[in-house]
Amino acid sequence: MSQRLQYATAFAPATIGNVGVGFDTLGMAIKGVGDEVQVSKRKDKLVFIHSITGVSDSASLSLVAERNTAGASLLALQHGEKINYGFDVWIKKGIPMGSGMGGSAASAVGAIIAANQLLKKKLTNKQKLYYALEGEKVASGAAHPDNVAPCIMGGITLASLQWDEPMLSLPFPNVMGWVLVHPNVKVETKAARAILNRNVPLEKYVEQSSLLSCFLMGLFKKDLKLIRQGFKDVIIEPQRSHLIPGFDHMRQSTLLQKGVLGFSISGSGPSVFALTNSLATSKKIAQLLKSEFNKLNLETECYVGIGRCPGAHLVKRKPFMLINQESFNQ
Amino acid sequence: MSQRLQYATAFAPATIGNVGVGFDTLGMAIKGVGDEVQVSKRKDKLVFIHSITGVSDSASLSLVAERNTAGASLLALQHGEKINYGFDVWIKKGIPMGSGMGGSAASAVGAIIAANQLLKKKLTNKQKLYYALEGEKVASGAAHPDNVAPCIMGGITLASLQWDEPMLSLPFPNVMGWVLVHPNVKVETKAARAILNRNVPLEKYVEQSSLLSCFLMGLFKKDLKLIRQGFKDVIIEPQRSHLIPGFDHMRQSTLLQKGVLGFSISGSGPSVFALTNSLATSKKIAQLLKSEFNKLNLETECYVGIGRCPGAHLVKRKPFMLINQESFNQ
Repeated sequence: MSQRLQYATAFAPATIGNVGVGFDTLGMAIKGVGDEVQVSKRKDKLVFIHSITGVSDSASLSLVAERNTAGASLLALQHGEKINYGFDVWIKKGIPMGSGMGGSAASAVGAIIAANQLLKKKLTNKQKLYYALEGEKVASGAAHPDNVAPCIMGGITLASLQWDEPMLSLPFPNVMGWVLVHPNVKVETKAARAILNRNVPLEKYVEQSSLLSCFLMGLFKKDLKLIRQGFKDVIIEPQRSHLIPGFDHMRQSTLLQKGVLGFSISGSGPSVFALTNSLATSKKIAQLLKSEFNKLNLETECYVGIGRCPGAHLVKRKPFMLINQESFNQ
Repeated sequence: MSQRLQYATAFAPATIGNVGVGFDTLGMAIKGVGDEVQVSKRKDKLVFIHSITGVSDSASLSLVAERNTAGASLLALQHGEKINYGFDVWIKKGIPMGSGMGGSAASAVGAIIAANQLLKKKLTNKQKLYYALEGEKVASGAAHPDNVAPCIMGGITLASLQWDEPMLSLPFPNVMGWVLVHPNVKVETKAARAILNRNVPLEKYVEQSSLLSCFLMGLFKKDLKLIRQGFKDVIIEPQRSHLIPGFDHMRQSTLLQKGVLGFSISGSGPSVFALTNSLATSKKIAQLLKSEFNKLNLETECYVGIGRCPGAHLVKRKPFMLINQESFNQ
């Protein structure tokens, strides 16, 4: 029993994949919503998922480790680090499924961050990334680091699996606000990837490169004017916007508001997000977007904040195996 | 006669279009080679090019203002600023034609910088860019700002004609060296553009975006390791490298040398360039590239330096109309 009491719990935040301008490479952590994963050691070598609770549709997720992003990450970790014990796992999802908020990445990262606490030899950030990506693959079919990287590192990250140093933290201006609105419709990542044209016209590539560069320059110089000048997605957004009810109208109304730096799709949608010049603007935009979605009979959840948000971290929780679900949920 | 004695002379440096990672958007000024343009007012409204001297093939350039990059820029300036006088123009080219060193941009920028000195109301940088680009169009068939922008601003620039602020200066690490080698073969910009695939595979677009971002991050953080990690062109270089004799072998040998951050084609070639960690490395690479080209029976000119190079600027020269060509050339 003492063996089983070695446990840890991690909170892993929701993330905005692509951040509009950097398809499959930029990502951004947000605050106030995420998944919690509790992991404890078990003597046999099984990875056993006891429960997945939280958001209403979490029951549809597989408890079979190989088919679960948290489970698959832990199996990859166990194999890669030659660990001779297993893991008991409890997942409490805060991120709705198919929301474009990086839910599969969060469960995978949460599992790795919690398990890391139980390891004698701690993982490097690069190892955390690679093990979590093995989980991410289960959900999205391919390993893209644009959610996992910011989920681990916090803030805005630049990531590429081609590099020795695959995750890089970008500066985040203190005064930059953000707002994410999740409408109650589902977009499957796999489907949203499948509709993308496999080729990018050369002139669009040039335009998006310069926009991305201008956006990054704005981050480094903490220059909101440059961030706004650079914040535009001319490649992916036009191909996906039709998946989100009312998107084009919402985009227009949002960009007309004072203090808005940019508006786009979070990951593969349906969540949308904006970057702003203040918390007050973010709150105003949240109201505007909520009311637009409501007009289309869609309920929403809204998240707003300002400044850099932290990545996944350990949280103090009672051991799940000793308590009932109600008390864990409180 | 007093009217004709109002004159100015500008030196405009050679530039490295694309800087390997930022096709049609990044550009970089170098030192030690460039075009000089002397401009004086004339009472009628003609733009009259008196002579083009300098590099051996300069005689093949048109003296007809509309077909000359300097002349066309001045005509655009005259029209745009509603100037009621003309210009006498003398051009001394230091940049070989068809070298991929931004020669057409340099003559255009030189003309605008010199003429600006004669104007009552001085031009903004944006106006300089747009007038010079009207000249650039004559040579390359389309207006791309990746040579004109660094030629005006110096250092490394990010430019896009879509923006209110179309030219942005990027930081240039003091310790970063450069080397440019021009082999004695010609590549016409128009032809080098024509061979490019009109589409970029989506995964190459993602890879190049992340490389460009990493390179920019390296510039901002003055981190040569990041600059090296980001310095790779997976889109344009593979399509153009066959235009340059011995390119692939040269690339391999150069990248094997210690202290080299990257190697690629300058603009549309045939000049090649490398970024390095010191002046000593730049000199070593210049020798290496020179000897490689010599093995292929190609003569070269080499330019090396370290740190940020200035953009176009006024220089003190005697009035050309009063002296003979020999004395101007000294």
